[in-house]
Amino acid sequence: MSLTPDLKSRILQAVEDGFDDQVAYLQKLVRLPSVRGQEHAIQDVVFREFQTRGLKVDRFDMDRDAIAAHPGGSPFSDTHSDAPIVVGIHHPRDEVGRSLILNAHLDVVPEGPREMWQADPYSAHIEGDWMYGRGAGDMKAGSGANLAALDALRRVGLRPAATVYVQSVVEEESTGNGALMTYLRGYTADAVLIPEPEAEMLVRANVGVVWFQVTVQGTPVHVAHMGEGANAIDAVYRVVGSLRELETAWNAQKDAHPHFADYDHPINLNIGKIAGGDWASSVPAWATIDCRVSLYPGQNAAEAMQIISDHVAAYAHSDPYMSNSPPTVTFNGFTAEGYVLEPGSEAEAVLGRAHEAAIGAPLQSFTATAYLDTRVYALYNQIPALCYGPISRNIHGYDESVSLSSLKRITGAMALFIAEWCGVEEV
Amino acid sequence: MSLTPDLKSRILQAVEDGFDDQVAYLQKLVRLPSVRGQEHAIQDVVFREFQTRGLKVDRFDMDRDAIAAHPGGSPFSDTHSDAPIVVGIHHPRDEVGRSLILNAHLDVVPEGPREMWQADPYSAHIEGDWMYGRGAGDMKAGSGANLAALDALRRVGLRPAATVYVQSVVEEESTGNGALMTYLRGYTADAVLIPEPEAEMLVRANVGVVWFQVTVQGTPVHVAHMGEGANAIDAVYRVVGSLRELETAWNAQKDAHPHFADYDHPINLNIGKIAGGDWASSVPAWATIDCRVSLYPGQNAAEAMQIISDHVAAYAHSDPYMSNSPPTVTFNGFTAEGYVLEPGSEAEAVLGRAHEAAIGAPLQSFTATAYLDTRVYALYNQIPALCYGPISRNIHGYDESVSLSSLKRITGAMALFIAEWCGVEEV
Repeated sequence: MSLTPDLKSRILQAVEDGFDDQVAYLQKLVRLPSVRGQEHAIQDVVFREFQTRGLKVDRFDMDRDAIAAHPGGSPFSDTHSDAPIVVGIHHPRDEVGRSLILNAHLDVVPEGPREMWQADPYSAHIEGDWMYGRGAGDMKAGSGANLAALDALRRVGLRPAATVYVQSVVEEESTGNGALMTYLRGYTADAVLIPEPEAEMLVRANVGVVWFQVTVQGTPVHVAHMGEGANAIDAVYRVVGSLRELETAWNAQKDAHPHFADYDHPINLNIGKIAGGDWASSVPAWATIDCRVSLYPGQNAAEAMQIISDHVAAYAHSDPYMSNSPPTVTFNGFTAEGYVLEPGSEAEAVLGRAHEAAIGAPLQSFTATAYLDTRVYALYNQIPALCYGPISRNIHGYDESVSLSSLKRITGAMALFIAEWCGVEEV
Repeated sequence: MSLTPDLKSRILQAVEDGFDDQVAYLQKLVRLPSVRGQEHAIQDVVFREFQTRGLKVDRFDMDRDAIAAHPGGSPFSDTHSDAPIVVGIHHPRDEVGRSLILNAHLDVVPEGPREMWQADPYSAHIEGDWMYGRGAGDMKAGSGANLAALDALRRVGLRPAATVYVQSVVEEESTGNGALMTYLRGYTADAVLIPEPEAEMLVRANVGVVWFQVTVQGTPVHVAHMGEGANAIDAVYRVVGSLRELETAWNAQKDAHPHFADYDHPINLNIGKIAGGDWASSVPAWATIDCRVSLYPGQNAAEAMQIISDHVAAYAHSDPYMSNSPPTVTFNGFTAEGYVLEPGSEAEAVLGRAHEAAIGAPLQSFTATAYLDTRVYALYNQIPALCYGPISRNIHGYDESVSLSSLKRITGAMALFIAEWCGVEEV
C-alpha cells in the first residue's frame, strides 16, 4: 500500500512535532555510560519505555549453550556482558501487513582518556546541529528513532497493521551475540531495519569480523643482561608485522568480491590494544595484542580463524625466540561473517520511496567495512536486512556526535517506511 | 691494622654460627612484598632491628626540594615512594678507625604475572642452595648481610672502632633518590660498601641510567575508517625504531670508554612497558612506552636527556602523522650518572684481603651495566664506593633466587672487611 501525499506529510509533521521529545530521550540514553557489561541500567530504561508505550515486553538473558552451538555465535570471554536483551512487541488488531523488526544496540565502546574529549563523554550536550557523547551516533540515536518513528504514527492516530518487534540488544560492539540471541529466541519477521549511523545511506554489503588476542611470553631478566632474556614487546611487534602480510594477501583477493573491488583496502587488520611488561628496567616478559580483522562476505569465519592461528604458528616457528616459546592465539570476541543485501527486494524499494519522500533525493547504497548486527538477519533469519541511519561524526573516537537534522530526516523516512511496509490501522 | 689468622678464623666461624639466624631474617624480609611505594612495613622491621641491636636510629623522609635542587636527583612522579629512609648508627667508644657506610635498598621490582613463577613470588622457600623470591637477591640478602656481618663481630666480643652507618633505603629501582637523600641528610664516611648481588665480584665501573616515557596520541576512529585515524600503536613503534638508532650510535662510542670497550653492547635501551588503545575495533588513539637507557660514566645526564628529547622530536618531525601530533617525552625516574671505582684505593685493598681470606681466591672486578646506588657515594660523597655481593639468579625475572652458600661467604668477607677497615674494640 503506497502512502497518499497527505498521509506522508502528516507523518513527517508528526516527526517534527515529536522531535523535542525524541532529542530529550536521546540525551537520557547518552547520559548512561553503557559500556560493555554496564548496560543493565539503560536496558531497564528501555524496558519501561516499551511498557509505557503499550508494547508487550519480552526480557531474556543470553542462552550461552545455544549461542555456543550456533555457527554465528562468538566465544564468551570474562568480559562478556550479562545484561538482558529486551524485545518490545506490537500486535495489530488485524495482521494484514508485513511484519518488521526494528533493532538497535545500546552497548557503546569505551570513551578512552577523558582529557582527549572537549567535554564529558556522557554530557549529551548540543552545539548547533550536533549532539555530543559516546554512543550518540553509534547507536543511541537509532535506538531512540525506532520508538520515535512509531510515536509519529501514533500521533496521527495510526499504528502498524502488522507485528513489529522493537529489539534492544547489547554485545554489538564485541560479539554480535545479542542480536543472534533474538534469532535463537525465535524472533523473526518479513524484514529488519537497523538505524546504524550510516550517513543516510543503505548498506549493500558488509564485512565479517573476527577478534583475536595474541600473547607472547618470555624469560624476563634485568636489563643489564638483555641478551639473555627474550623481549616480549619486540616479539609481539614481529607478530604484528607477520599479520600485516596476511592482511595484504587478503586485500589482494578483493577482485573476487564485487562489492569490495573498488576499495583500496577493504580488509582492515586493527591492532586495537597492546599491553606488556611491568617495569622500565626489566626486559618485558609478556605482551598481548588485541586484534580485529575483517572478512569478505562469503568467507567462512571458522576457516579464517584457522588461517590466523596457522599463520601465527608458522611465523613463530621461523622466529628464534618464539619457536621455543610459541605465542598463544585466543578468539575472544567476534567470529562473525559478512553479508550482502541483494538488490531488488521489496523492502529496499519501500525504504527507497520513504527516503526520497523524507529527504528529497534517491537512496544510495554503499559497502560497510565495520561489523553490523544486520548479518544475523541476513544470514540466519534470511530476511531483507536494511541498515540505514543518520549522519554522525567520530564514532569510536573522541567528541562523537550525531547530526540532529539528519536524525530528524531519517526518523521521517523510517516512519514512512513502517507505514508502507506494515500498513497502518487506526489506533 | 691487619687481622691475625686467629681473629679471621674466629670471625668466619661466628658468621657460620649465626647463619641460621641470618637466613631466618632474610626469609622475613623476602616475605614482605616491598614493591615501590609499599616499603613502609619492611622499613619499620629494619628500624626495630636496628634498635634491638643498640644502634641509634635516624628515620627521615625524602626532602623533595633538596633532591630536586641536586644534579643527581631524579624527578618525582605520582608513583614515587614516600616510605622513610632508616639509618642505624654505631659509635665506638674511641673513634680510632676509618668510618664506613653499609648501604642496602629494600624496594623490589614488581613480580609480574604470578603464573610465570614456579611458587609464590614472596614464599622465600629454600631448595638446595637457593632461597627463592622477589628481592631475595636484589637485594634483601645484602641488607641482611650488613647486619649479620656486625653480628658476627659482636659474637666474638668485638665491634667496629669507628662510626658505622647502616643505611636502609628505597627508590633504588626507580630513581636512586633514597641513597641520594642520605647524602643530602649529611651522612658520609671514609668508604661505603653496598652488597648488591654481584656474583662475588667488585664493580669497577657502572653505567648511568635514564628513564623516560614516550606518549603518542592520535585521532581515534572506527576501524572501518582506518585511513582517517592515526594508529598510535604503530606510531609509537616507529619511535622505538628511531630510538634504536640512538642506542646504536651510543654503543659505537664504546671505544672512548675504557671499561666498556670490551663489551659487545654496553649501552642497553630497554622498552620495559607498553600500553595503548582501549578497544579491539577502534583505531588506537594513544600509546605509551616506558624506556630505560644507560649512559657511560662521565656522560652528563642532563645532556643525555636533551639528546633523547631532541632525537624524538626530530624523528617525529619527519613522520607524516607525528609531525602534526608530536609525541611527549617525560622523564619519570632515573636521571643518574655512572661512575668508575679508580683502582688503587686502600678500601679496595682491604676488601681484596677480606675476600681472599673468606673465599680463597683473588677478588675480581667487572663493569656493571645496571644502575647502582653506589654512584651517589662515588660522585657526591666522593669516597671509595665498593659494590660487592652474593651470587644470584634471575633478578628482575621469575624465580629470582640467591645462593645461600655464596651469601655466607660474602658475609664472612664483609665481616673481615669491617674489622680491618674500621678496626675493632671490645664490646
